[in-house]
Amino acid sequence: MTTEDTMQSLQGEMIQWRRYLHRHPELSFQEHRTSDWLANKLEAWGLEVRRGVAGTGIVARLVGGLPGRTIALRTDIDALAIQDEKDVEYASTVPGVMHACGHDGHMAEMLGVAYYYSRHREETAGTRVFLFQPGEEVLPGGALGMIADGALDGVDAIYGVHLWSPLPYGVVATRPGPFMASPDEFEIVVTGKGGHGGLPHQSADAIVAGAHIVTALQTIVSRNVDPLQSAVVSVGRLQGGTANNVITERCLLAGTVRSFNEETRQLVRRRLEEVASHVSAMHGTKASFNFFLGYPPVVNDDAEAERVLKVAGELEGIEEARRSEPVMAGEDFAYYLKQVPGCFFFVGAGAADGGSYPHHHPKFDIDERALLTAARLLVAVADDAAAEIGRA
Amino acid sequence: MTTEDTMQSLQGEMIQWRRYLHRHPELSFQEHRTSDWLANKLEAWGLEVRRGVAGTGIVARLVGGLPGRTIALRTDIDALAIQDEKDVEYASTVPGVMHACGHDGHMAEMLGVAYYYSRHREETAGTRVFLFQPGEEVLPGGALGMIADGALDGVDAIYGVHLWSPLPYGVVATRPGPFMASPDEFEIVVTGKGGHGGLPHQSADAIVAGAHIVTALQTIVSRNVDPLQSAVVSVGRLQGGTANNVITERCLLAGTVRSFNEETRQLVRRRLEEVASHVSAMHGTKASFNFFLGYPPVVNDDAEAERVLKVAGELEGIEEARRSEPVMAGEDFAYYLKQVPGCFFFVGAGAADGGSYPHHHPKFDIDERALLTAARLLVAVADDAAAEIGRA
Amino acid sequence: MTTEDTMQSLQGEMIQWRRYLHRHPELSFQEHRTSDWLANKLEAWGLEVRRGVAGTGIVARLVGGLPGRTIALRTDIDALAIQDEKDVEYASTVPGVMHACGHDGHMAEMLGVAYYYSRHREETAGTRVFLFQPGEEVLPGGALGMIADGALDGVDAIYGVHLWSPLPYGVVATRPGPFMASPDEFEIVVTGKGGHGGLPHQSADAIVAGAHIVTALQTIVSRNVDPLQSAVVSVGRLQGGTANNVITERCLLAGTVRSFNEETRQLVRRRLEEVASHVSAMHGTKASFNFFLGYPPVVNDDAEAERVLKVAGELEGIEEARRSEPVMAGEDFAYYLKQVPGCFFFVGAGAADGGSYPHHHPKFDIDERALLTAARLLVAVADDAAAEIGRA
Amino acid sequence: MTTEDTMQSLQGEMIQWRRYLHRHPELSFQEHRTSDWLANKLEAWGLEVRRGVAGTGIVARLVGGLPGRTIALRTDIDALAIQDEKDVEYASTVPGVMHACGHDGHMAEMLGVAYYYSRHREETAGTRVFLFQPGEEVLPGGALGMIADGALDGVDAIYGVHLWSPLPYGVVATRPGPFMASPDEFEIVVTGKGGHGGLPHQSADAIVAGAHIVTALQTIVSRNVDPLQSAVVSVGRLQGGTANNVITERCLLAGTVRSFNEETRQLVRRRLEEVASHVSAMHGTKASFNFFLGYPPVVNDDAEAERVLKVAGELEGIEEARRSEPVMAGEDFAYYLKQVPGCFFFVGAGAADGGSYPHHHPKFDIDERALLTAARLLVAVADDAAAEIGRA
Repeated sequence: MTTEDTMQSLQGEMIQWRRYLHRHPELSFQEHRTSDWLANKLEAWGLEVRRGVAGTGIVARLVGGLPGRTIALRTDIDALAIQDEKDVEYASTVPGVMHACGHDGHMAEMLGVAYYYSRHREETAGTRVFLFQPGEEVLPGGALGMIADGALDGVDAIYGVHLWSPLPYGVVATRPGPFMASPDEFEIVVTGKGGHGGLPHQSADAIVAGAHIVTALQTIVSRNVDPLQSAVVSVGRLQGGTANNVITERCLLAGTVRSFNEETRQLVRRRLEEVASHVSAMHGTKASFNFFLGYPPVVNDDAEAERVLKVAGELEGIEEARRSEPVMAGEDFAYYLKQVPGCFFFVGAGAADGGSYPHHHPKFDIDERALLTAARLLVAVADDAAAEIGRA
Repeated sequence: MTTEDTMQSLQGEMIQWRRYLHRHPELSFQEHRTSDWLANKLEAWGLEVRRGVAGTGIVARLVGGLPGRTIALRTDIDALAIQDEKDVEYASTVPGVMHACGHDGHMAEMLGVAYYYSRHREETAGTRVFLFQPGEEVLPGGALGMIADGALDGVDAIYGVHLWSPLPYGVVATRPGPFMASPDEFEIVVTGKGGHGGLPHQSADAIVAGAHIVTALQTIVSRNVDPLQSAVVSVGRLQGGTANNVITERCLLAGTVRSFNEETRQLVRRRLEEVASHVSAMHGTKASFNFFLGYPPVVNDDAEAERVLKVAGELEGIEEARRSEPVMAGEDFAYYLKQVPGCFFFVGAGAADGGSYPHHHPKFDIDERALLTAARLLVAVADDAAAEIGRA
Repeated sequence: MTTEDTMQSLQGEMIQWRRYLHRHPELSFQEHRTSDWLANKLEAWGLEVRRGVAGTGIVARLVGGLPGRTIALRTDIDALAIQDEKDVEYASTVPGVMHACGHDGHMAEMLGVAYYYSRHREETAGTRVFLFQPGEEVLPGGALGMIADGALDGVDAIYGVHLWSPLPYGVVATRPGPFMASPDEFEIVVTGKGGHGGLPHQSADAIVAGAHIVTALQTIVSRNVDPLQSAVVSVGRLQGGTANNVITERCLLAGTVRSFNEETRQLVRRRLEEVASHVSAMHGTKASFNFFLGYPPVVNDDAEAERVLKVAGELEGIEEARRSEPVMAGEDFAYYLKQVPGCFFFVGAGAADGGSYPHHHPKFDIDERALLTAARLLVAVADDAAAEIGRA
Repeated sequence: MTTEDTMQSLQGEMIQWRRYLHRHPELSFQEHRTSDWLANKLEAWGLEVRRGVAGTGIVARLVGGLPGRTIALRTDIDALAIQDEKDVEYASTVPGVMHACGHDGHMAEMLGVAYYYSRHREETAGTRVFLFQPGEEVLPGGALGMIADGALDGVDAIYGVHLWSPLPYGVVATRPGPFMASPDEFEIVVTGKGGHGGLPHQSADAIVAGAHIVTALQTIVSRNVDPLQSAVVSVGRLQGGTANNVITERCLLAGTVRSFNEETRQLVRRRLEEVASHVSAMHGTKASFNFFLGYPPVVNDDAEAERVLKVAGELEGIEEARRSEPVMAGEDFAYYLKQVPGCFFFVGAGAADGGSYPHHHPKFDIDERALLTAARLLVAVADDAAAEIGRA
């Protein structure tokens, strides 16, 4: 049986696996049954399976019959606290919980890859390490725990896929360097001195201070960030006061920061605090400042991203291997890339007309043909990378 | 029995009346039992009583034995939706309702004045008209209805008292011209286009527009209002957004405007709308604007205010007749002063050290000695005004 | 000869004196010939004259024949660096120097008053002290020097006049309490870090900081100053940058502050510095701050202002004694009023239709009939004040 | 004689040519003697020379002996209005005019290339077109005129070099896609209503409006521009007012805009006008708005930029072919690239330690070894491009 034969024959299996998982979603760090179900399969196929990594994670290992490097492939396994509103037979059976981001597909395609290698062990060069990671959706994410628990030990390179709804089926996309943003959050609470709405001179007006902070922090992106770098500072919540004729003593500002490298990220954080602090002091108020670190930016290794684009460009069934712009969403795959070279990439799973529901939508679904695309591309990339000799 | 004897003897009565009323407060425009109780007394004393004026109001009339002008004296009769927290035997017996602004005292002192005149009718010059007005605390106030119902018909001048907690007992205060502010309110709703916090260019950020409106409207007082005029624009509520990482489409600004003349008031109103409109347009958002007219400013007749200050300055028991600064609170007594000359004045009812609870506080109380002060001053002012001949 | 006869007969003299002085103006603190000419006259009339007070000032003294208090009357004597553009025979003969504020008239009317008293010494109660003060037009003003040189020694009260072009002839105006503003100035220099217009992140943009300071300092009047107080903060000059495509390192803000009491003045000063300092720090720039104290506010003694209004109201030839609003201009007469009770007042010297040229205009002129009005009022006020017994 | 021999032998000549041109700079569109001197040489070498293109420009043509495509190579020829402050024997002999941007070197290296081809005509594939363009330094630039005058007729691809002082000798840099910014300028004049500094309510304060515009336009980059796009809006000049105590009626804002594509550029232009217009209207002032289009962004053809990087990477003497970030400066080479595919690239001509004077500095100079680098790279790129068959 050729590689291609095996892969093609797996398509139906992967779809069934995905639908099973879709029916039985579990929230972040609570993926116990999911994890057991996965591990049982992997063990049955003869992989060396370590359960309970970072809680509900799994590390599965397969040593090929030929010499080569050690390549890790990662999937996330958690679902979201969203009520499934799809009218399909494989809809979630768990009220208020749903695989609305495609992790069910990620697991299915990764099972496909693992099964494939279990059938082609002798002709495989190097080692494959399969990471089934819990809790991608909630800070601080499961990747750090997996790494701490040795998931990357001996690994030479790592790859990960996200099935991507805004991209049509048939397109693969990634880019060298910064690919996904660092999604941090901040919270500023201005505390002034409340008082009678008609007597402002006896108060320190927290709303005026809050409004000036919003106004002033526009300069972070417009003046402080290198114009060749991308950064966003958005205030999502601005909340002050309860009565029209009372000057409030408290105003909350909370928002999100997106950036693609640590320098910009730290610059924005520092400037936010400076703006909050100085504007508050100017108005005789005080500001507390909290910055909640999201995942780091996903920064692909240049050579590995070029590898994925090259391999994808030559793979049958992929219409376009697109050199993408960065995207503003975040991913804790970023942590793996800080340890070893690798690449995170998108496999198109949306409608050609762009009309698919977005990720995290109650009606989110995927084009299931993308499972095969993703599995084939993972195998092709892993084999290409494993065969490389003498990389530093 | 001399005037003074009568007044002195009334002190105990007024305190009892006030305490009875304090125990039985009724909300604005619902003062049915209060009104009956008052009207019964007034009728028993021989006054000509018209009940049900503007709902629960009363107009009582007494024609003196000597020629003279017709002088109106007004009290308000409503209580507030505040839970009484005082630990006194005369505390409110109605849960959640309380005479927390002193209207109970106003009624008691006005009863004292009415009783006094009923005992001294023959030596009284001119006519006295007693206005017991409902609903001073809630827009649009009861004064307009009283006027529409003929309360000022034939009236030559009108006077009103507010027992004033920030002033110590023994002090009376008022001023010619603008005395109390016009307390208007406004509400601006900015509507933009919501979106992903990382993609500001696809949104029209209502929070940024709202913050810029707050910043820009500071120029109304700093640049547009005549610096010799007093005006205040305070934003009491600024509310936008529900999630840190979402750009909100809606931001509310609501606040209060204080001014002392119609020209300033209309200027502020017009400028608020212009600022909201232009800032919103600048950010690609839209703003709705509503302005809620409060009472007009209380503008005392110059001569009548001088009369009150002169009479008070000569009255035994009043330590100081103070020419006061304007105050930022409002009163619907303003409407009467737009119809006939008159004066609204404060009678000190607070502690000498300024430590009394403020009006509208759950522990608000008055120095009951002020009831006699107020009653004597009302009589003295009314008699002085009634005796005046040939005023234009 | 009655008082009134003497005054009437002086009208022609005063006009001649005024025109002589108008032809021969001298700049502030250089009024040597003016001073000699005045002193010679005063000595010739038998007054006790002290020359050279505070440089070019004069203190002249006349002790009346009857007991009474010591009353000072003040005139300023300096002209302005303005080219006279009037086409009259009494136009300035000195190129670029002109009595464009009416001080020539002030001197003429004061000479009239001095001459009058020299003719009516015996029936005069108390003492009159005539202050001819240099340098009213330029900071720090001549008043401080006059006071330091003993001009107020033994003085019980002081009065001063300004012939006022916006007021029509026949009107006199003043007010108890704050009457003229304190005209201070400030200068803020923001120093950032210059750079290429396309590389803002390498600069600290002084223009952005300067603009934010202008925006933020609007809150001083709108939020920090008591709304019952008058205050103005105007930025008259905002200057930054020399090339469109270069981020400038320097931005200047300079302006004026007007206030009517020391508390407000110091509040504004402090807030300006705080705003400049905190906004600059926020933008990574530095701000230098200078505040140039103008004269203090002119605060009339309440009783003395009432005296002037009463006396003026009863004086023949004065149509209206107006209780005026405060005015935003300044005067160093303020310093005298910080030492002794007194009153500064305006004597109308403008056209009835308001069409006169404003003070400091190259075509400024006065209605010369006002000289007699001012002289008569000064005498009447001084006599009234001198006769008062037992004032604390 | 081999290619390399010819090139090496030209190094001395190119340095002499460059020094001659450096001594005799001519301002933009006045390059008459420069143009004659160049044309004479080109004719002497046997090229087909068209003089007077777009005024002082030259198009020189050489048809090779072998089949191939037509490749244009462009140099600019104008100098700047800067006084040369270098102390070298080849310093400018024209007071106030200087080759401070390296165009002398561009001409010298282009002469080297032309001479080379004249010696190797038979073995040259295709045609070479040499563009000597006037007026690169001043808007609207000379490129548009050259194109209008047929300079690109029949041309298949175009290349241009800038000797680059911030890059060390030995480094070549460019990038596919947007490489140099569009440097537009804008000017906003706010006209309000002037007045007395103490009477803001009678004025419309142009400085306050100007400051609010600066504050508000920060949102163009922070909110309106796609965060994945680069854009800069800098206000270089902010000028309002002449006296501290006068509210000015006029405030100027002028600045620069940098962007890398037409969509962003037009977005910024539109938003600038909207912000100026709405903020002005809000303050009762008016704003005039002018936008001065600079050159379009220099957008390299992807394939041609890859060609330059590849060829440079393989060329002896070039240490590094760097994939550069975009730069914020502009170039009218942009216009050629809108007509035909091509690439603009930098050849390092600065010190290894980065200590060279920047372009447009009175002491600007180049490492003359870069002339040979540039000439060799131009030949290598042109030959590579000319040989290409069947490009769409």
